[in-house]
Parts: sequence; structure tokens; C-alpha cells
Amino acid sequence: MADPHEIMLECVNLALAGKGHTKTNPVVGAMIVQNGRVIGRGFHKSFGGDHAEIEAINDCEEETNGSDLYVTLEPCSHFGKTPPCVETIVKKGIKRVFVGVVDPNPANAGKGIEYLLKNGVEVYVGFAERASAEIIEEFAKYIYKKQPFYSLKIAQTLDGKIAAKDGSSRWITDETSRQHAHYIRSVSDGILTGIGTVQADDPELNARFLGLKKYPYKIILDSSLKISAEAAIFNEKPEKCIIFTSISNFDEKTVKIDTIRKTGAEIIPCSKLNDGLDLQNVSDELVKRGILNVLIEGGGKIHASFIREDMADKAYVFIAGKILGAEGIDSLGSLNISNIEKCKTLSDLNVTRLKNDFLFTGKFYDYSKDVISLTKRVRNRCSPE
Amino acid sequence: MADPHEIMLECVNLALAGKGHTKTNPVVGAMIVQNGRVIGRGFHKSFGGDHAEIEAINDCEEETNGSDLYVTLEPCSHFGKTPPCVETIVKKGIKRVFVGVVDPNPANAGKGIEYLLKNGVEVYVGFAERASAEIIEEFAKYIYKKQPFYSLKIAQTLDGKIAAKDGSSRWITDETSRQHAHYIRSVSDGILTGIGTVQADDPELNARFLGLKKYPYKIILDSSLKISAEAAIFNEKPEKCIIFTSISNFDEKTVKIDTIRKTGAEIIPCSKLNDGLDLQNVSDELVKRGILNVLIEGGGKIHASFIREDMADKAYVFIAGKILGAEGIDSLGSLNISNIEKCKTLSDLNVTRLKNDFLFTGKFYDYSKDVISLTKRVRNRCSPE
Repeated sequence: MADPHEIMLECVNLALAGKGHTKTNPVVGAMIVQNGRVIGRGFHKSFGGDHAEIEAINDCEEETNGSDLYVTLEPCSHFGKTPPCVETIVKKGIKRVFVGVVDPNPANAGKGIEYLLKNGVEVYVGFAERASAEIIEEFAKYIYKKQPFYSLKIAQTLDGKIAAKDGSSRWITDETSRQHAHYIRSVSDGILTGIGTVQADDPELNARFLGLKKYPYKIILDSSLKISAEAAIFNEKPEKCIIFTSISNFDEKTVKIDTIRKTGAEIIPCSKLNDGLDLQNVSDELVKRGILNVLIEGGGKIHASFIREDMADKAYVFIAGKILGAEGIDSLGSLNISNIEKCKTLSDLNVTRLKNDFLFTGKFYDYSKDVISLTKRVRNRCSPE
Repeated sequence: MADPHEIMLECVNLALAGKGHTKTNPVVGAMIVQNGRVIGRGFHKSFGGDHAEIEAINDCEEETNGSDLYVTLEPCSHFGKTPPCVETIVKKGIKRVFVGVVDPNPANAGKGIEYLLKNGVEVYVGFAERASAEIIEEFAKYIYKKQPFYSLKIAQTLDGKIAAKDGSSRWITDETSRQHAHYIRSVSDGILTGIGTVQADDPELNARFLGLKKYPYKIILDSSLKISAEAAIFNEKPEKCIIFTSISNFDEKTVKIDTIRKTGAEIIPCSKLNDGLDLQNVSDELVKRGILNVLIEGGGKIHASFIREDMADKAYVFIAGKILGAEGIDSLGSLNISNIEKCKTLSDLNVTRLKNDFLFTGKFYDYSKDVISLTKRVRNRCSPE
């Protein structure tokens, strides 16, 4: 029989196909194996739809009795948008269940596994744990903090500048890096930026990748509602535009507001905090709309504000072999850090060579660690290997 | 018989053993092969000593008649500190000579190969060219520009800062990175820094590596001669300290100057240029003393001044997974670049993962390209392969 670890990694790959469609649900992948042969595959395709286990079971053309189920996340034991998966698993006569990681959702969190064990199913927990946990980082943050998962995307010179003194930045990184950035956009629920960037670059904020166009939400932080109703973000899919503003008197800008709202775009009033919008307020509104995986492509000020509020989760830093010197514009605004001991540290650093540039990734906080440690705690209550 | 390319790479490794000892001579490695067996090895050990070919010939315990010589650099045809190597090669009855790259020194530059060909030796040119050329980068720059080869060493955060607002920088990078920096020091002829760094950190500027201590020249740019006679650089090997200053009246600081000079350290008067020392003047003085391979460990101002004067050749940038934000101190001072089109570009970029950090290397100018293109031109006149 194949290595359960390998099979689980295949389930992880299956799960990723759901990325960008599951809103506040996690992405999950599952496979059914009968006598060493895969007889069914499934993944959670979209919010409200069947869970991965059910998709895999429905995919089987033959008997599931006595088979093995591999699933990246603990099957659910509670009624959500769909009935509990564990009941179906038992009914279908599945003999053994291999679980990637335990569900961090407190409504489940071991209860699914318990139900299966009580009903005579053998359960083995903790396969390809790191990969199984990493694909649900956004979900884990949502569960723990009820906030979206924020990734910063920065394209900078080797000396940390995102533009020259005159604001010119086209192009610091090369075509290959920009393509890769569009791929990252394409698996995000939303792209967030500030009015400064919108006014300077008038971007479309869509994802153009391999000839396909995708439309994550376009989220603009615009305290004073300076945005023009002619901005390029309204050209296509204006209904996916969300403008946050803190102006107190909407009447003053009625015409513009009406024009923008008629396109289908949302303008959301938002409270102020310090010298910007209240990011907790922004986060609440995004979560309400099921926008969980947010890519921030701001200037240095926007990026710094998310870091200062401890909301930034991950950074994608494209670094080109160029330098601009002190006159260049900093990739990050003020973080109020005056001593080296207070610097922010990124964990789980990686670097990938693209064509001419390098992509650094790192995490401000690693939610997968929490999921893995929960998994370890639950594993001790399961079937011995 | 072994691949000439492989043998040449071994010669390159041999050559590197001379790094840091050859002053204005290139490092060179050589091997003698008789009937497929290596019978002699040699490298240029120190300025004024035997060249690598002669070392390899002298290393042979058996007859060199009819043998092959592999050498990373074209053998010399002129009297320098030693007689022309080509005469010895012919006398020793060597049948074939395999050359890594052609000597960029116009006194030779193909003449050595020509002499060998005229005297009935078969010559094959261009093996492991890239490696053979890269080990003589400093020499090539010296030949082309009569200047030392300047490498910048920077230890910075991901956002390009070398210290926090309060000047604290210990430690941005980790122990492993700092060890590696000491290795780079240990193969340099000199370490150059500014009086600012000396006053802030009071460094020893030696190379501590694998339990060994090495003492490259300690070169301080100190326009106003602010250095204290008690600075730590004078603790060990004060005779390897060189202070450049532009003060016009040495009499005013006689006591300090006397104290420093008595240690054996040099104080060299230097002209001013713009708001700093004239770096061409500094370069001339360093070349005079055979200091060719200089590692610059300055603050951002010193680094920027070498870049502005087009003298910086290479950059070693250690990047830690930390961020400091806009208040941090920039890794580079002003480069007077206002538009992205004018940015400086580094070629031949590489990144290596150290323990927690990453080391980026890149070149401002790639001298090995010139050596390789010279080699290609000369090759056409040689024995057919």
C-alpha cells in the first residue's frame, strides 16, 4: 500500500483547487482508497457546497464498504451549511479514516474524531500535518481572531525601496515576478490598497494569469473618499469594488456616491483610528462578506498600518537586484520602532529565484503551528498506529 | 584521460589558496599531468614568489618531458619579479599547455601563448573560463583601472535597514552570518570603514574565523582625524592600520598624530572631493601598498560614496527576516537617483541561505566578462582542439 503521507499530500493538492471559493470555510481535499486503489476523489468546491469527504464518497463508482478515507481536515460533527460528514462516513461503512490535521473550529476540534471512534471507525491522525495545516491558515486565523488573513505584497529594490524619489516604480521587478504576483492575486479573495496607489497608478486590480482573468474583490481604503467615479477599478466587475471611507457627511459627495453605487460598488462608512481607518472595523466588514484571504498591495503606509495593528500575517517580498539609495521611497512606513530589540521578526522564511528577481516569503504569525499542536493533543486519544 | 575542464577546476581551487597573499599579482593554480597522472601541483603563493607553473614544475619528482601543463591563467612572457614562465615551460619539454583564461595584463595578453606556439608547444585555451576569470576579478580591475576591487558588506533587515532609529544594530543578522562575514574578511587584503563606524562600534576589524585570527589592513576614512589613539583597531597589529585624513594642518594634532604613528600605523593626507575624501586618491595609495581586495564595511554614507564614484564592484548583502520600518537607518546613503530608470543594477545575482538569514551577492561590474572575451579573441589563434 502507498505511504499515507504521500496520499495525504495528494489530498492537499486536491484541496488547493478550492482556493478562492470557500469563503469562511476551509479548503479540504479527500480520497477514498479500497484495496490500495484510489476509488474516489473530492475537494470542497465552494462555500455552502458539499464537503470534501462527501465529494469523494459521491465520486466512487464502487462500494465504499471497508474502505479507507483520507482527508486533510478532521470531518465535521456538527450541522453547518450541510449535515455532519461523520454520520455519512459511518453509514458508508468506511473502515479507517486518516486525518491530516484536527479542525481548529471549537464546534468540532476533536468531536468528529470522537464520533468516528465511538462508531467503530479506526482513526489515524496527523499525516502531512504541516502541509494540511498551511492550506487552512486563513481559516485558522478566522477561527482564532475573526479577522481576514492579510498578506503583504511588496516589490522592492535590494535596499528596500519601492519607488524612486519622483514616485516612478515601473518596473522594479521583471515580467516574471509580475506574472507571479498575478498568480498570488488569483488565489486571493480580495486585493486591498490605499487611495494613494489608486490615484497614482489607476490600477485595475484584477488577476491576469495564463491568459485568464480573475476578479478578487477590490478593496480601497479611502478615508476622505477622494476616489474618482472614473477610476479603472470600476471598469470591470464594479460590483466587486468595496470602498471604505470615514467621511462623516455623505451628503456633501452625493453625486459621486450615487454614481459609484449605481455601478454596483459598495461604499462602506468606517470609523477612524489614529490617523487612518479603523482596521478592525474594516476586518469585520470583510469577514461579513466572506472575504478571508486578502492581499495587500499598498504603499509603505498601508503596509505599515497593518503591521502596527498586528494584523499582517504574511509577506511576499519580491526583491530585484537594483538599488536606489536613500532618496528612494521606503517599502514600509513608520512602525514606531526605535531599538533593534523591538524589530518585527518573520518566521518560516523562504526565498525562491524567479527570472531576474527573488521572492522572499515569511510569516508574522504562524497559525499552522497552533493547528499542529491541537492535532498532537487530539492524536493521543486516537487509534494506535 | 580526465576532462580538461575538471582538471582546470582543480587548478582554480589550488589558486584560491593564494588569495590574500599575492598583492597586485593574480592568484593562479597549475597542474602537470603525465600519461593521465597528476605529477605536480602548484599555486602562486605570494607576491614576488614563483608563479604557479614553476611551483607545479618544481613539485614534479619525475620527468616533465612530453607532459601536459594546466594553468588557470596564461603563462607570462615577460620579466616581472621573476623570469618569463614560458621559457621554463619550453625548456622542460612540456608538450601541451591548457590555459584557463588569457592574461588581461597588456604586457602579456596573448604573447605568452604566442611564444609557446612558436616554440612547438601545443596550446589549448579556454577551460573553466568563468571560474578561472572570476578568481582574478581584483587583478583584472587593477589592470583595467589601477584601482583596488571594492566589495561592500551590508547586514540589513528585509526592508533595507542597517540599524534602528537609536543606532542599535546588534544583532540584525545571526551568529552564522557574522561568521561568514569574518570568512569574507579573512580573504580580503583590507577592511575599509568610516570614522563614524569606528566611533560608534570601536571595532577591532580583524578576521576571526574557525579559531584563527587574520589581520587584513584596517583602513579608516577620517577626514577630520577624529580617531582616538586608544581606538580598538590599534590594539593588535597597529602597523596594519591606515588612516586617511584631509586635515590641512597636521601641526594642530601633533600629539595624537605622533602617538598613532609611533604604533606603526600610517596616517595618510588625502585630498577632498565634494563632501568627502577623494576616493581616487585613496585608491592610488592602497594600490601603492599592494592592497587590492578591499571589503568596505561602512555605514550607508561610505557605501553610497563608492557607488556614486562608480568604484564599488561587488556587494555582499546579508538579509535577516526582520523589519524595522521607515524609522530605521537606510543601508545606503544618497545616490542622487531620482527616477527608476537611473537605478543601479547588479548582475550575476546569487542568494544563499545561511542559518536564519540569506546572503545576496551581486556585481556592479563584471570584470570576468572582459577576461572571457579577451580569451575568446586569443583562442582563435591557437591550436585546433
